[in-house]
Amino acid sequence: MRDVAQAFVPGHVTGFFTVDLAEDPTEAGSRGAGLALSEGVTVTVRPSEDRELRLNGEAVSVAAVHNVLDALRAGGQVRAVTDLPVGAGFGVSGAMALGTALAANAVFERGLSAYELATIAHGAEVQADTGLGDVVAQRHGGVPIRLEPGSPQVNKMDAVPERSRVEYVTDGEVPTAEVIGGDTDLITQAGTQSLSDLVRDPTLSTFVETSRRFARETNLLTEWVHDVVRDVSAAGGEATMGMLGQTVVALGTGLSDAGYDPSVCQVDPTGATLLAPPTDPTLPE
Amino acid sequence: MRDVAQAFVPGHVTGFFTVDLAEDPTEAGSRGAGLALSEGVTVTVRPSEDRELRLNGEAVSVAAVHNVLDALRAGGQVRAVTDLPVGAGFGVSGAMALGTALAANAVFERGLSAYELATIAHGAEVQADTGLGDVVAQRHGGVPIRLEPGSPQVNKMDAVPERSRVEYVTDGEVPTAEVIGGDTDLITQAGTQSLSDLVRDPTLSTFVETSRRFARETNLLTEWVHDVVRDVSAAGGEATMGMLGQTVVALGTGLSDAGYDPSVCQVDPTGATLLAPPTDPTLPE
Repeated sequence: MRDVAQAFVPGHVTGFFTVDLAEDPTEAGSRGAGLALSEGVTVTVRPSEDRELRLNGEAVSVAAVHNVLDALRAGGQVRAVTDLPVGAGFGVSGAMALGTALAANAVFERGLSAYELATIAHGAEVQADTGLGDVVAQRHGGVPIRLEPGSPQVNKMDAVPERSRVEYVTDGEVPTAEVIGGDTDLITQAGTQSLSDLVRDPTLSTFVETSRRFARETNLLTEWVHDVVRDVSAAGGEATMGMLGQTVVALGTGLSDAGYDPSVCQVDPTGATLLAPPTDPTLPE
Repeated sequence: MRDVAQAFVPGHVTGFFTVDLAEDPTEAGSRGAGLALSEGVTVTVRPSEDRELRLNGEAVSVAAVHNVLDALRAGGQVRAVTDLPVGAGFGVSGAMALGTALAANAVFERGLSAYELATIAHGAEVQADTGLGDVVAQRHGGVPIRLEPGSPQVNKMDAVPERSRVEYVTDGEVPTAEVIGGDTDLITQAGTQSLSDLVRDPTLSTFVETSRRFARETNLLTEWVHDVVRDVSAAGGEATMGMLGQTVVALGTGLSDAGYDPSVCQVDPTGATLLAPPTDPTLPE
């Protein structure tokens, strides 16, 4: 057993998605596309008798994280820290689940592979009804395109080969469970169409365009998001809704140019990863 | 058309591998495992009438790169820069092919996806007889395990969820084509066994151990490599041969501890990626 392990998992904003249910939670999931963000969640796991979970210093209960710890037969103190808005469509619960899986595997020396750990985190998130595609996208990094649903051991991925500055503003939350538990035929139909169009032209511009159409066609677009996106377009920028949140994401300086005061980050090219052990002084810069 | 685009592709040392031939070069390839390295190749592509390819300032001809440019119907000036030893098992040709694909796609706005570009680079490298698994591993980053051969669009991946300092020394080259063109049954048999053992315990220690056994059983181990690996073991470290090169890689401070003066880098968690456009002043740090 090790004293401590740390993982960083990027945030993930979804542009469009489908709902692909299945009996087996590791085969359930979603197709779609999004942006992995350099803002993310840092998860630190230490061994302890009792389970303890904190997010930004406050005790929280996150079902997906508990499911992960159950699957790894791990106690442990889990500390998650993030600057991302919580419950606003940035995949914080998925990041906590995946970061916990990576760090707990290291601390308790469970000997699981990267994809096995992502499968556990994905299944945990699906079972908790808190997400369908974030964990897969967060493991991958970049601008992931989820061609086939399910865990990284069964799905099929691609990606948009671009980087960008990303700006976002947010104004509250849309509970994931309500949407993915409701009538999802319209969502899956629109998501499938957007996916097909993005695959034909895998660029960031087309990602934003197909995402915006998805938000309109699924009626998920709120009035507030609609107005902000319109302002960005009027200023010559590209923006769309971050699913599922009261959130607008823009490429480049889209929101700043439209007079907003956004948070700023960029596309994270790496995906979820263990951080260098704080105790390893041998790592070069 | 853009003025310039740049990509970074990590080096890749192979620990063990199989040779899986197929009619279609995108389905041919190899299973196995290796380390993606923070030392890699930076490729810069600019439009130009004539093709021009330079490696560290010197004009070179690299078949895999020409194949990539052919596939993308691209002219262009390609400048590759690396601190890695060339022809010593660090995947420099694969890195040049993949970096050229990413950067040329951006410059000439070909609109291909990340996996399509990796497929082109993989096929180009296979057709040039210069590698079977590097491009796939370099696209992935980390400590990639190639479970099934072929391009990223048909293969199956996993990874060892660990980071480490990596040290290496090198003493000349072993031509890839001679080995992968020769009798490969023994290689594939030993590689399959090592893969199976690593999948059972996907840790860095087991990676080194299974790689060392592969080098012995395939008779690819040279006397020089054997002696260096023995020195590292005697000093309590873990080292193995970098395939296919007169190269020894060690985890942590293995080579330093044994009295060598190695090059030092670390596992690269990211994989091949476009670099921020030098002309984009909006990117945050």
